[in-house]
Amino acid sequence: MAAMASLHLKTSSSHPHSISKLPKPYSPAALRLPLRRRPAPATRISASLIDPDGGKLVELFVPESEKNSKLKLASGLPRITLSEIDLQWVHVLSEGWASPLKGFMREAEFLQTLHFNSLRLENGSVVNMSVPIVLAIDDAQKNRVGSSASVALVDDRDDVVAVLSNIEIYKHNKEERIARTWGTTAPGLPYVDEAITDAGNWLVGGDLEVINPVKYEDGLDRFRLSPAQLREEFERRNADAVFAFQLRNPVHNGHALLMTDTRRRLLEMGYKNPVLLLHPLGGYTKADDVPLSWRMKQHEKVLEDGVLDPETTVVSIFPSPMHYAGPTEVQWHAKARINAGANFYIVGRDPAGMSHPLEKRDLYDADHGKKVLSMAPGLERLNILPFKVAAYDKTQNKMAFFDPSRAQDFVFISGTKMRTLAKNKESPPNGFMCPGGWKVLVDYYDTLSLSDNGRVPEPIPA
Amino acid sequence: MAAMASLHLKTSSSHPHSISKLPKPYSPAALRLPLRRRPAPATRISASLIDPDGGKLVELFVPESEKNSKLKLASGLPRITLSEIDLQWVHVLSEGWASPLKGFMREAEFLQTLHFNSLRLENGSVVNMSVPIVLAIDDAQKNRVGSSASVALVDDRDDVVAVLSNIEIYKHNKEERIARTWGTTAPGLPYVDEAITDAGNWLVGGDLEVINPVKYEDGLDRFRLSPAQLREEFERRNADAVFAFQLRNPVHNGHALLMTDTRRRLLEMGYKNPVLLLHPLGGYTKADDVPLSWRMKQHEKVLEDGVLDPETTVVSIFPSPMHYAGPTEVQWHAKARINAGANFYIVGRDPAGMSHPLEKRDLYDADHGKKVLSMAPGLERLNILPFKVAAYDKTQNKMAFFDPSRAQDFVFISGTKMRTLAKNKESPPNGFMCPGGWKVLVDYYDTLSLSDNGRVPEPIPA
Repeated sequence: MAAMASLHLKTSSSHPHSISKLPKPYSPAALRLPLRRRPAPATRISASLIDPDGGKLVELFVPESEKNSKLKLASGLPRITLSEIDLQWVHVLSEGWASPLKGFMREAEFLQTLHFNSLRLENGSVVNMSVPIVLAIDDAQKNRVGSSASVALVDDRDDVVAVLSNIEIYKHNKEERIARTWGTTAPGLPYVDEAITDAGNWLVGGDLEVINPVKYEDGLDRFRLSPAQLREEFERRNADAVFAFQLRNPVHNGHALLMTDTRRRLLEMGYKNPVLLLHPLGGYTKADDVPLSWRMKQHEKVLEDGVLDPETTVVSIFPSPMHYAGPTEVQWHAKARINAGANFYIVGRDPAGMSHPLEKRDLYDADHGKKVLSMAPGLERLNILPFKVAAYDKTQNKMAFFDPSRAQDFVFISGTKMRTLAKNKESPPNGFMCPGGWKVLVDYYDTLSLSDNGRVPEPIPA
Repeated sequence: MAAMASLHLKTSSSHPHSISKLPKPYSPAALRLPLRRRPAPATRISASLIDPDGGKLVELFVPESEKNSKLKLASGLPRITLSEIDLQWVHVLSEGWASPLKGFMREAEFLQTLHFNSLRLENGSVVNMSVPIVLAIDDAQKNRVGSSASVALVDDRDDVVAVLSNIEIYKHNKEERIARTWGTTAPGLPYVDEAITDAGNWLVGGDLEVINPVKYEDGLDRFRLSPAQLREEFERRNADAVFAFQLRNPVHNGHALLMTDTRRRLLEMGYKNPVLLLHPLGGYTKADDVPLSWRMKQHEKVLEDGVLDPETTVVSIFPSPMHYAGPTEVQWHAKARINAGANFYIVGRDPAGMSHPLEKRDLYDADHGKKVLSMAPGLERLNILPFKVAAYDKTQNKMAFFDPSRAQDFVFISGTKMRTLAKNKESPPNGFMCPGGWKVLVDYYDTLSLSDNGRVPEPIPA
């Protein structure tokens, strides 16, 4: 596996500096930093964050002053009721994670995504766009829309969320969409089962204008920073490098080691203030993943226990639903973080991967994610940081980078093993995860065994 | 459908000129023009052909003087026996149709093809490459190769064809390859059945050096001009525009009308000498397609009968096998013709398409081919000419461009209908196809009904 030492820098903001002093010691007050406001320091480093795709961050909110007139207009339009996942995509689009996309994809964008994982802009430049962000409607909905140029998008209480204008309706070839996005059409792909199989046979694309921003009222909205808010936060902190870590699992000390080590290396490279964006995915995940609320509690403990330094870490929620589409999806995960200001992206083994739904093997080659990411059109500006393999070092009783010359000293603790231990209220080896974080996991699996027939209970706010 | 009138020119070699005089009348002697040599005219128009992908046409032949030493070297290498389709790809690669590809794909190229339909070159530029050109080997072959850096590629008589050097062996995930190339994994895709399903679970990529160029000894080798030979021919003819027409079916008068009309439009645009590359595909085709030898006979008749003008037409065979992969494959068909010097590409309805193997519908949306082609990375330099729909005009007793304002005057004669008529020795409407060409078709289906259980007999050389 390519080590981070071989990293090729792609930004112009790196200068050879001596290594700065170590980060400040942990301060509990810093936990809430993303929303805390500190006075700007007198001198600012002349670092500028990476430009969003397309040059300008897209935000698709109707200005407060126009909301009433837009709502009135919407009331006269044909209505399309959004599913929970549709709403998550409205959220994603409205905040510009998919910049320069300005709404649900029309056919030209859909086809470019399926065939090229990228979009060519009018000026000839190319941005990455690997997963289709589309809105499906069925025949009845299509008939209701008729020849209207706009539609109102409403939630399950029939409240207007947004307007989609200059719409284009085109065929939803589900088989082709699935095959080209996942590289398989095997039944049992979670996102497909959840959002595609029973969806309508048409897609409607257009320009999105959000009247009522999507909120979840789950106690976690304060962690849902938009790309614009994240950029503001990084600038406030005078970050001269932002490295993003996408995750949908609890953080163990191997992850923490990797993140800490990445910061150390960035400092060595001359950056003065690299900031970590610890960015758990907050949209749809499959049933056996740990729910967002519990993951956020676990991440909080990891920061409280001092495993990661809150001074140089921003914890925020990435609102995208999860596709589990491996090398195709990892590009989306990386691209969205460029829009949030990250110029370094940490990529692990088998990112966004899962088991093959039918065969006894992983769906994707574990190395394809990082290979595809490193070659993806539109991501040339992003520095890809391949994950170094961490494992439990029995000689040190802690997580350490795997050293093949003394392989016998290491134990690999798989996700399955971790889950089994937590379910059985057993403890992992000392030093695998901070005790506070581990307790959250044990508590989560406890609620599962208490609930009827193993179904996941209502998430408990962090 | 976008009409050719809206064509946007992408070459710099077009100048506003008055329309030149009409092409010279038909001359039978011109039929063999591709291989006939005429003295170069005293003055040459300063037109230059479109550059090959990557800037330089790749040719992978071992020079005559080095053949013996290379053969000797090859005799000591592990041997891989090529299938008929593998040999067709060796042919394709060796002549530079896939320039700048220098051999069977290594994993980095394979992944870029699957995910992006394009390859990024070392200088950062992008070329189109939409179908994987790969060589599969099984476990036993892989074991025989061992750690050898090179292998000898041999034909079914164990004669050495080529050497593959600096090889890389990687996993052949057939399901993913099929899903991403065809947008379906339904059983019954012809190329998949023929070349993938039973192929080995490994792919071997490397640098190809061809010692013995692929010949078919079917009487048609003289029509198999390489990209270099075609470029020479176009220059000899002082072509200032080359428009390519890919086909795998008999030519009827609707095709001829389209090609003649294209030339007329190019003259109107100011080109002085647009040349048509009539370029039937010569590699693997599915069992119910008309075999190459019969198609070539039919194309000859079409030229003999004066339907197309041999003075401004080059008939040659494109050696690629057929994938029937619709929008993915049409990019390959277009890209390969850039390498042969074509800067205009005519694209029809549902190019490289077929029926869904399981469902009662076309596998691809009929318009996706031309849409995808117009957006494909690496094909920006190519002028895409969408097919205008031709149909049989009952008021004129000839093929004409369909006029929706008098739809009742037109009859659409489908491929199925054409085949049924030819099989039953019935005649199509007057003016549908030149009589000589039609007779070839009737003769072909005659041989089929004479052969045992409907199987295709040995092709008869043209």
